[in-house]
Order: sequence, then structure tokens, then C-alpha cells
Amino acid sequence: MNKMTIEVGKHKEEHLRSSDFITDIVIGMSDGLTVPFALSAGLSGAVHSNSVVITAGIAEIVAGSIAMGLGGYLAGKTEQEHFQSELKREYDEVETIPDREKEEVKLIFAQYGLKELTQIAIVEELSKDKNKWVDFMMKYELGMEKPDINRARNSAATIGISYIIGGLIPLTAYFFTQTPYEGLVFSAILTIICLFLFGYFKSKVTGQPPLKGALKVTLIGITAAAAAFWVAKLFNNII
Amino acid sequence: MNKMTIEVGKHKEEHLRSSDFITDIVIGMSDGLTVPFALSAGLSGAVHSNSVVITAGIAEIVAGSIAMGLGGYLAGKTEQEHFQSELKREYDEVETIPDREKEEVKLIFAQYGLKELTQIAIVEELSKDKNKWVDFMMKYELGMEKPDINRARNSAATIGISYIIGGLIPLTAYFFTQTPYEGLVFSAILTIICLFLFGYFKSKVTGQPPLKGALKVTLIGITAAAAAFWVAKLFNNII
Repeated sequence: MNKMTIEVGKHKEEHLRSSDFITDIVIGMSDGLTVPFALSAGLSGAVHSNSVVITAGIAEIVAGSIAMGLGGYLAGKTEQEHFQSELKREYDEVETIPDREKEEVKLIFAQYGLKELTQIAIVEELSKDKNKWVDFMMKYELGMEKPDINRARNSAATIGISYIIGGLIPLTAYFFTQTPYEGLVFSAILTIICLFLFGYFKSKVTGQPPLKGALKVTLIGITAAAAAFWVAKLFNNII
Repeated sequence: MNKMTIEVGKHKEEHLRSSDFITDIVIGMSDGLTVPFALSAGLSGAVHSNSVVITAGIAEIVAGSIAMGLGGYLAGKTEQEHFQSELKREYDEVETIPDREKEEVKLIFAQYGLKELTQIAIVEELSKDKNKWVDFMMKYELGMEKPDINRARNSAATIGISYIIGGLIPLTAYFFTQTPYEGLVFSAILTIICLFLFGYFKSKVTGQPPLKGALKVTLIGITAAAAAFWVAKLFNNII
């Protein structure tokens, strides 16, 4: 049994996705590399001063990192509150309408073709321990996992900082060039390389085909930048 | 049994979260109202022409909607591919190492305190139908639900369009005013009202306390805009 447990554990690990920390970096940097790059590319076709492009880029990075970071933090808090209220509700239901909750457990297993007798055995044994019963209902009826208390805060910080780092990369080119067009050329070269490397790394850690993933990420960035460039140019000619 | 099924069904519905469509609108509009608002606010403190603010705002909306929409679409496709590869893997495992897979099922129920005999009964009955067995492993071992084929495409379009609609709201004020400062005042009034109403509606459909939710959403928008305003002003003085 012991060896089997270890083997089962090992097998599970292969299924395991990347850690939350890496996921947060990927979320933040993915948007950070794309949106400020596309915004500055868009402005490069419409304004004549690098300082405007840089100012807009900085404003975007601040806005985006706060929206993603603070937004993520508050979403995490909401998720925790939601989990707590559903948990309380399940405890109440197990207490006040145990027969209906038992019927729900039976239904879960009925749909997998288990016999009535086995369903009853599961329900009777599971309902002996209220905590485990509620745990089971939370996970298998509602599909909810207990959120980590510190997760929301850490996640917000990681996403926000990754967005800032990602966003500063395309902007650097405008610091060292004289015109927005010149800035755009260097920014595009630098960012496309970074998007490709980032997409490759991201796909590696999430277990996807790395080359395909790298091309996808790069494609999103180029499409967003090209569209922003043409639309901004068009609008600038109209207004 | 029939009445019980209906009642159980009704009870489940109360737990049900908002639809995917509403969720996508919320995702797109939440960022769409916040980031272009904060970007234009940031630029208002640093540039002297409404047309620059509008051009940057339009470029941001194009960039953001494509990054979110196309990004969401490709993420959805990746999720589908991942589900298919895990599904294939589970079918392989059920075929080639059924004893280990059976042990995994037993472990799931052992942790809820079910007796060895009941665990064995579950495994024996479940493993009779390979499709149901694999379904069970996908959902309860890996926590993966079958993604909807059309979901990725629809989701991308809904998120992208919601971002555009949300983003155009703060920009309208700059069309009808003479200076960026004037534009900012009207943009802030209009957007804060919209953020509050949107936050209220969002919280209603997701089952959160609406007033608290409305304040959270408004707070994120104001914080992002204020931070972008001051940082852009600061940078503009330096460069």
C-alpha cells in the first residue's frame, strides 16, 4: 500500500500544472508585454514626440498594473467570502435538511452508474463525519476549493509587478531614439523577441508545445500593435 | 424520487453562478471602463491637446480589446487541447494500468473516511463502464470539465466588444470639451457613475453584496486614474 501511495503521488505530480506564482507572472507579463507595446506602436503612427509616447506608455503601465493587481486582489477577497458563505450554507443544509443533502450525494454517484446499495453505503459512511461530508459537498457538488488566505495579496503583487516589468520593455526603445518611428522600429524588434521567448517559456511551464505557444503569444502582440497603429493613424487624420 | 429530483435541481440552481455570457461581459467591461479611463486621466495631466488623449485612448482600446479578446480565444483553444490530451491519457491509463487507477479512486474515498469495502464496491462498479470511469477521473481526480467547443470563440468576441464599449465611455468626454483638464472632469464624473452602476449590476448577477461590490469597482477605477495622473505628470516633468 505504501509503495502504491507513493507511485500514485508521483503520477499525480505529472498531471500537476505550474505553480500559482508562475501563473501570476505569466498573467501579468503576458498583458504587460502586449498592451503597452501596442499602445506605444499606435501612438508612434500618430504623434511626433517620443515624450508623448513615453508619457502615455507610463500612464498605461500604471493604470494596467493597478487594474490587474488591485482588481485581482479584490476578486480574490470576493472568492474567499463566497467560499465562506457557501461553506456556512452547506453546514446549515447538512444540519437542517440532511435527507435532501443525502439525496444529492446519491445522485452524484447514480450518474456514474453505481448501484443503489453502494450509493446508500457511501451516503451512510460519509454522513457520519459532518466536516468530511461538507468538504465532500463543497468539492464535488459545487466544485469549490478552499482559497488560500494569503493568495489574493501575493497574487495581486506578483501580477502587478510582472505587468510593470513587461510594460517597461517596449518603452525603453523610445528613451534612446529621436523620433516615434525610430522608437517603434527598435521597440518592435525588442518586444517581438521578448514575446517569443516569453511565449516559449510560458508554454514550457504550462506543458504546451513550446514553439506553437511562442508563435501564439507573438501573434497576439503583433496583431494588437498593428491594429492599434492603423486605427490610431486613421483617427488622428479624422480629428 | 421525482419530486426529490426536482427539489434537488431547484436547490442546485440557487448555487448556480451567473452565465458565461454575463461573466464575459463583466470581464471585458470591467477592464474597459478602468484602463482607458485611467490612461486618458493620466495623459490629461501631461499633454495639452484633446486629440492626443483621444488618439492614445483609441489606441489603448484597440490594443486592450485585441489582447483580451484574442488572448482569451487562444487560451480557450489551449484549454480544449489540454483537456483532450488529458482525456486521452486517462483512457490510456485505464487501459494499461487499471490497478493503479483503481487505487487512485479508492484513495479519493479513503480520505473521506469511507470503509475499505465501500471503496472496493465503488471501484468495481465504476470500472465496469470505461467512459464513465474516465469521466469520473477527469472531474474528480483532475478537476477538469469538458470545455465547450464554441465557447472560446464566443467568449473572445464578447470580452473584446465589452472592452470597446466600456473604453469608449470615458473617451466621449474629450470629444465634447476644449482642454484635457475639462475633458478629465467630465470623463471622471461620467466614468465614476458608470463604474458604480456597473459594479452594482456585476455584484447582483454574481450574488455578492451589491453596494460593497459597486464601491470596490469604483475604488479600483479611481485609484488607477489618480495614480496614472500623478505618475504621468511626474514623468512629463522629468523627460
